[in-house]
Amino acid sequence: MGNADSGAVKANSAAKADFGMIGLGVMGQNLVLNLVDHGITVVAFDPWPEARERFFGGVVAREQTRAQREGQAHEQTQEQGQGQGQWQKEARGCAAILRANSINELVSSLQRPRRIMLMVKAGAPVDALLEQLTRVLESGDIIIDGGNSHFRDTQRRAEMLTAKGLHYLGVGVSGGEAGARYGPSLMAGGHSDAWRAVEPILNAIAARAEEADGGKPCCGLLGPDGAGHFVKMVHNGIEYADMELIAEAYAVMRVAPGMGPEELSRVFYEWNQGDLNSYLIGITAEILDKQDHDTGRPMVDVVLDQAGQKGTGLWTVQEALALGVAVPTIAAAVFARNISSDRAARIATAARFGAEAGARVGAG
Amino acid sequence: MGNADSGAVKANSAAKADFGMIGLGVMGQNLVLNLVDHGITVVAFDPWPEARERFFGGVVAREQTRAQREGQAHEQTQEQGQGQGQWQKEARGCAAILRANSINELVSSLQRPRRIMLMVKAGAPVDALLEQLTRVLESGDIIIDGGNSHFRDTQRRAEMLTAKGLHYLGVGVSGGEAGARYGPSLMAGGHSDAWRAVEPILNAIAARAEEADGGKPCCGLLGPDGAGHFVKMVHNGIEYADMELIAEAYAVMRVAPGMGPEELSRVFYEWNQGDLNSYLIGITAEILDKQDHDTGRPMVDVVLDQAGQKGTGLWTVQEALALGVAVPTIAAAVFARNISSDRAARIATAARFGAEAGARVGAG
Repeated sequence: MGNADSGAVKANSAAKADFGMIGLGVMGQNLVLNLVDHGITVVAFDPWPEARERFFGGVVAREQTRAQREGQAHEQTQEQGQGQGQWQKEARGCAAILRANSINELVSSLQRPRRIMLMVKAGAPVDALLEQLTRVLESGDIIIDGGNSHFRDTQRRAEMLTAKGLHYLGVGVSGGEAGARYGPSLMAGGHSDAWRAVEPILNAIAARAEEADGGKPCCGLLGPDGAGHFVKMVHNGIEYADMELIAEAYAVMRVAPGMGPEELSRVFYEWNQGDLNSYLIGITAEILDKQDHDTGRPMVDVVLDQAGQKGTGLWTVQEALALGVAVPTIAAAVFARNISSDRAARIATAARFGAEAGARVGAG
Repeated sequence: MGNADSGAVKANSAAKADFGMIGLGVMGQNLVLNLVDHGITVVAFDPWPEARERFFGGVVAREQTRAQREGQAHEQTQEQGQGQGQWQKEARGCAAILRANSINELVSSLQRPRRIMLMVKAGAPVDALLEQLTRVLESGDIIIDGGNSHFRDTQRRAEMLTAKGLHYLGVGVSGGEAGARYGPSLMAGGHSDAWRAVEPILNAIAARAEEADGGKPCCGLLGPDGAGHFVKMVHNGIEYADMELIAEAYAVMRVAPGMGPEELSRVFYEWNQGDLNSYLIGITAEILDKQDHDTGRPMVDVVLDQAGQKGTGLWTVQEALALGVAVPTIAAAVFARNISSDRAARIATAARFGAEAGARVGAG
């Protein structure tokens, strides 16, 4: 595309951007839209041309249409946003999304010190990008890793970048897609100099505590290199345990009193009104209430009974073991996912130990 | 000492030894005595002079006295041992323990290819000894690590020694002190050339299966570098789980029906007569039956309720996590030991949650 030169989108504009984003998957896309909502001009790039096209040709265009349609409500939101720091003030109509088609284009589009966030898959992709970036960045520039990197990788990378005169912040981003779009929780680790240079931007896009609780941004520097990803790791570990707890509560009620998905959905909706109110209890109620279009059966009885894992829960248990800390509930969640993922073994076990066990293995 | 020049002990003898032992803690001492019982002449060394003195001045002397006293029985045992391989045949009175007061003395006392076993604390002591040994050993010589080394350390060391033309075997030794003295289970990993050079010796000193089960030595090459220590690690992990299971069975009976240690001891003795017969059930029965001399109370109520760990159970869980294998029972054992070791936290928790919980924390 690149021909959308009005409103929030300017492709290859001559203006310098405040912030760079590399990685335009769902999380990266939503963070860019969140940033520009808060008056931050972003230059965005993805190493994969199809991802760039999908974002600039599709997502951004749709977002413009929506913004024009919801013009009134949108302006109102910006009005409310006043007084929330310099980035918010600059939001008045001048923020844009710039398109970069290469690392060099991204780097040359940014004001100095450059602030570049990586939202790419943890592991080798981060190292590959850092290698490219370190060749073109200049002293004092700041790279933010917003992915689910292992905190030890973050420590290693920070050391490597510091030796080259660059800053590195490892930032855990929590809240999923909706959080990225409308307010994530941001857990940073790194040097305070680097933090100061990005703090106003990250504060602006973060979720906020309830007014009654002070309304402060859910965003902070939690410690030195790796601290942000360490906290995000433990946060995810706790979430593993929470999900396992919900799954076990479901299983007990499903098997013993023989409650059906709809009935269970009502129980979770009720729980979600009281002390147990939480995102996970809420979506559990919703999921149990969903029907499969093709069969008309409850979705939970049709989907494959296999859970994957990205690693943070596993890492939490590994670190806890290394530190001598007991984390039996998180470990139970990781082991349940391991058992879940080996469906063939579960079916073989069920066949060996009888039909009743078999019926519980999965209904797919 | 060094003046015991008759019988099983020859200090600094001119004869070349079949086997070298470095590390004269309880396990090393007992393996040396086991080796010499089977006709293998051993040169023994410990980097710590006091350990050498304790062994040659105390243990070996006592062993000689015992052997002379039990002369008749001892010869009978040797008679029975006939036909169990060349090492057994050579046992007739000519095997000896040679004393070395340095690495160089040990190395120069051995026939080639030299076979040297390390029975020292896992970790840095192994690396320190390997560094000294590689400076004086010659191509084709074999080093055996009989400690509880992490299998990844064993893999790293094997690679390092192979590059220097030396052989390295990582051997898990199981059965505790009594096993080392009268027949351990030996789990080796490494190259088959190195294995062939030590197999007859290790077979000779190993435990044996029941005659009904073929009477084969509990000893074998289980795979390439690190395999022996990997199997030993998992073996210990299973033992962790077994001990935790016994501890929980004890706790349930102690708390719910309120059974006392003596009564519980009878239960475990009874269990040890049936399907549950095992070393661990047997010693549990014995321990529950022990009284403290000073107080006259059951020993189990007087000892500190803190369990330590050397790491193999922990490593098993870490490796299982890395491999995606569910090991909930072993993990539960590791976490229980973590909780056990933090007595201050348990006492604080008990104080907070009431006296009844406090009574169960520990009676020390």
